Order: sequence, then C-alpha cells, then structure tokens
Amino acid sequence: MRREIHDQPEAVARVLESERAAAWDIGRRLRRADVRFVLLAARGTSDHAAILGKYVLGCKLGVPAGLAAPSITTLYRSRLRLAGAAAIGVSQSGRSPDIVEFMRHAARAGALTVAITNDPASPLARAAAFGLFLRAGPERSVAATKTFTTQLACLYLLAAGWAGGRRAEEMLRELARAPEALARALALEGGIAAAMRRARGVERCVVIGRGYPFPVALETALKLKEAAGVFAEGASAADFLHGPIAMAPRQAGRAFKALLLLSRGPGGGSMRRVGLRLRAAGVDTMALGPDPTPDWLSPFPLAARGQLAALHLALARGLDPDRPAGLSKVTRVR
Amino acid sequence: MRREIHDQPEAVARVLESERAAAWDIGRRLRRADVRFVLLAARGTSDHAAILGKYVLGCKLGVPAGLAAPSITTLYRSRLRLAGAAAIGVSQSGRSPDIVEFMRHAARAGALTVAITNDPASPLARAAAFGLFLRAGPERSVAATKTFTTQLACLYLLAAGWAGGRRAEEMLRELARAPEALARALALEGGIAAAMRRARGVERCVVIGRGYPFPVALETALKLKEAAGVFAEGASAADFLHGPIAMAPRQAGRAFKALLLLSRGPGGGSMRRVGLRLRAAGVDTMALGPDPTPDWLSPFPLAARGQLAALHLALARGLDPDRPAGLSKVTRVR
Repeated sequence: MRREIHDQPEAVARVLESERAAAWDIGRRLRRADVRFVLLAARGTSDHAAILGKYVLGCKLGVPAGLAAPSITTLYRSRLRLAGAAAIGVSQSGRSPDIVEFMRHAARAGALTVAITNDPASPLARAAAFGLFLRAGPERSVAATKTFTTQLACLYLLAAGWAGGRRAEEMLRELARAPEALARALALEGGIAAAMRRARGVERCVVIGRGYPFPVALETALKLKEAAGVFAEGASAADFLHGPIAMAPRQAGRAFKALLLLSRGPGGGSMRRVGLRLRAAGVDTMALGPDPTPDWLSPFPLAARGQLAALHLALARGLDPDRPAGLSKVTRVR
Repeated sequence: MRREIHDQPEAVARVLESERAAAWDIGRRLRRADVRFVLLAARGTSDHAAILGKYVLGCKLGVPAGLAAPSITTLYRSRLRLAGAAAIGVSQSGRSPDIVEFMRHAARAGALTVAITNDPASPLARAAAFGLFLRAGPERSVAATKTFTTQLACLYLLAAGWAGGRRAEEMLRELARAPEALARALALEGGIAAAMRRARGVERCVVIGRGYPFPVALETALKLKEAAGVFAEGASAADFLHGPIAMAPRQAGRAFKALLLLSRGPGGGSMRRVGLRLRAAGVDTMALGPDPTPDWLSPFPLAARGQLAALHLALARGLDPDRPAGLSKVTRVR
C-alpha cells in the first residue's frame, strides 16, 4: 500500500501524457454527438472518483451528470432510454460484473460509452466504444490508492477534451501540476505518521468535506475502514449539519475523531461551521489541508493525505494494511 | 415522533388521493415535453426519498435520473445546460436555501421543474413550475418520518402519472395499498420495542439494503443518529462487500449491530451473502422485513420499521427523540 501511495505522482504524470490524445478524440465525439447528460457507473473507490467526475463535468462544462444505480439494470432488468446520453464506466480491473453489464446495456440503449479502467483487454473496455486507461501497472494492495488518482486524472482529462479548444489547453496546464501537488502531500508523511501514532486509539471517525473535497471524504473513510478497521463515515458538511451532528455529543470521546478535509474553495465557510459545532460537542477534530492548489485539483493531494492517514493508523495499531480482513480485489456482485 | 410515525398510513392515503390529479397533469406535460433525463435535488431525509425517485423512474419508466449536487450551482456558480431535463426539488419545508437556489437555476436553464414540499407557499414551490404537496400538516418532530413516506408517495405518483394510460392505473392500484402496508408494519411496534430494549447498549450500527431497500437503509441510519445518538451508517450490500466489510471483525462486539433491511425483491441473494459474512466476523445481525408487499412498495413498511427501531432505541436509553442534540428543522446551507 505504501509503495502504491508513493507511485502516484509518477502514475498520474504518465496517464496525463499517455491518455491526452485519446481524451481529445473522445471529447470531439462527445461534442459532435451533442450529448445532453452523463451517467457514471462505478463501485467503491471508483464510485468516489466518479462523483468527482460529476463535479468536474458540472462545474467546468455545465454538463449534468449523475451516478447510475447499476441495480436498476442488473437487478431489476429495466431498460433505460439513453439517447443523448454518455455512459462512463469506471473500474480498476474492468471486471466488476454489474458495471460491465450496465455498460453493455447502455451501449445497446444508445449511449456513447467510455470505459476508464486499468486493463484495455478487460470486459469493461470491450463493452465500451471508447476507453481511457490507467496505465498504473498491476495494483497489488487491496486498498486502492493509485487507482483513485489515476481514474481522477482520466476523468479530468476527459472533461478537458470535451471542453475543447483553448479551455482544454488551460485545463490541461493546471492538471499538469497534479503530480507535483501529490508529491508535496506525500512529503508530509512524517507528520501524518506521528499524528496517527498519537491517534492510534481511534476506532470511529467521521470524515467531512464540502464541494470537491467531499468525494475525497468518502474515499478517505473507505481507506480507514479497509486498511485500519476503523468505523469511518464520509459526509458532506452540508448534509452533516442537517442531522448526523446530533450523534456528536454521545459519540465524543477518545475513540472518536472527526477529520476535516479542507481546500481553498468556497466550501471553507461550511467547514468552519461544522468544525466549531463538533468541537462544541466535545469531538476531537483534525484538519487535512488546505493544499496550495486550485480547488478542483485539491482531490489529488487530499486523497494522498487521507491514504497516508489510513496507512499509518493501521501501522500504529499493528495491523497489516495489505491484508484487510476478508477482502479480495474483485467483488462479484449482481 | 411517535405520533407522526403513526400518522403515516392516513397521511399517505391522503396524499395519494389529493395529489393524483396533479400528478397525472404533470405526467402529461413530462411526456409532451419529451423529457430525456431527471435531476433530483434534496438533502437529508428528502435526499433518501429522492434516491427512491431515481429507482422508480429507472425501473418502472426507463427514465435515467440522477441526484444533483447542489454545490455545483450554489457553491461553484456553474450553469448547467438543462434542455430536455426535468428537475425535481424535494424539501419538507420548501426552505432549504441551496435546494431553492438550485431549482431557480434549473428553471432558468430550461428544465421542467417540479417541487415536492409540504408548503405550497414556500420559496421552493414558488421557484418550480409545478408542485406536488405533502398535505402532512405541521411536522413537529425534528426527526422527519411522515415527511419521508409522503414524499415517497408523491414521487411514486409522479412516476405513475408520467407512465400514463393503463400503466398509470396499475401503478396507482398497487400504490393504494401502501397505507395498509404501513399500518401492518406499525402493528409490529411491540416486538420492535422489546428488541430495542435488549439492544439498548448498541452505540454503532450499519444498516444494509439492496435495491429498493437501500435508500431506506440510508434513512434508517439517519434516524438512528438523530433520535438515538447512534453512529449508524447506511450501505448497499453490493458496496459493503467491496470494502467496508473489512472493519467487521474489529468492530464486532456488544455495542455494534448490523440491521439488514429485507424485501421480497431480487436483492435477497446479496443480503443473505452479507448476513453470512457479518455473522462469520462475529457481528450481531438483526433483520427488518421482508414485508408481504411488492418490492417497489417495500420502502413504505421498511421505513416505518426503521423509524420505530430508532424511536424505541432512544426511549430504551432514556433519550428524548424529540430533542436531538443541537438540531433545528431548517438547516441553512449554501
């Protein structure tokens, strides 16, 4: 897990280089096809990358996007009407059966289909008309890390390609700084490890973000569960203040912590409010970020900080983060 | 909270009666406008109802739907291109500022807009071209209960109206049995209360469903947090087996429980698998359901069972479920 976390600056740089031309080509086709909306299909870590895909398509291009519920087609056998849609399937292995089945369905239903996967020979890649590939090499750790950031790089590239023209070049120029933002975050490892040694009694955690950091909160919570066995839940600051805050006074204590994921974006006000409310309820909070990077790129360094936190909490507790209890790489769900 | 839980059969029957004509009218307009996709905007409990709206539109009508991230418009000020879209805003009070703002934006961006709210005079109702109203009377309890099932009734009616013709009448005929399914679930209160007295030491909980019961798992987890101060997380069985299961052995113990929400639908296989895996890891599981009702209607009785579980866990612990720590009815988020 640690090696793959540190691979990320290079892996992201590689994917930005290798997939640019394909992203520009797919972008042209998306513009030509006059695509009106996007459905993204993914599970687990890939789902969190897909939510960021929805944000970047909405914020940067004004394209409405939503997450597909694969069960609508795989469990309930419904046929969606997908004329005017693009379907983007995201899966590291390209072998999650329900994502593959959803993409086959989407292609038949008239959607323009794009696979984002590590394996160009996978069923997912074969089910889609177009593909962007992670080129991340075999992922050995069960807890996906470079998968997340390389999927993110592909989704962001796709958005840039779709924007086209000068906008595409501007987005690419900013995106080219993601590897360096990742490297800066990884250089914080010593401090994060020390903080996690002090926090080694933490068994429960809420991880909170707002805007671009929100899907990273979901992803960080998943890493804490998988690698460190912590009962962690990710939440949006907006939703958290709507109800879940009620559990704070009862849950507060040495075994409970709130991680606040910060960026330089407009979500800062909400994050300050949620931090104040949590501390007033006696909850110990810890901030990750903000990194000196534009808000839309903050998921890269924030994800790396969260991965390091999960890794070092596991190590501080004497757990082997590479052998989480009872997990395998591909979960066969229908 | 208890009174409002028991109001539900009558409240749902009332809304099915009072909103049918409006739903049929909106349905005609949705068909005439050739709407291609739907964005639903909501927070908290309303968000969970909206996810079920996405399921019913997909499963029953083949209409692709997704959840809007309000922050894309309210925080990041992006303009979505929404020609060919319908936007459905769901809010009990009709006063959640970010949902209202999203709906104003959606109307300007060319979407056909529908408000689902308790208050026909609210800003949300005024921002939308059409409305379906909960007619649920003032909701006094902070933990929303009848809000959820009456919102669900409106969303299901809207789907029936959109289907039109004989399909609409068939769906309405099934839907008319939701109040009786709710009443049957409420009659189980004694048994649920006894189970919750035995479970009163539970401080942490995962609530798991698959298919239609999945959004009810999210909602039940929220009720457990709000009313009983439990750290509860809702999850899809498919996603849970992908990673979060890893925390099970470490979290197992008297203070941790898994609630499994069952229906008579095709998700049974996944639910059995997740139950076996949890019990093998030493986790105490408790099933709610299945109720003798068609799968797509299972959210009505399952939601009632979950509400009763949260209420009686709170009471068994000496908490006042009507005064959760630091919550108010409308959370002002931007």
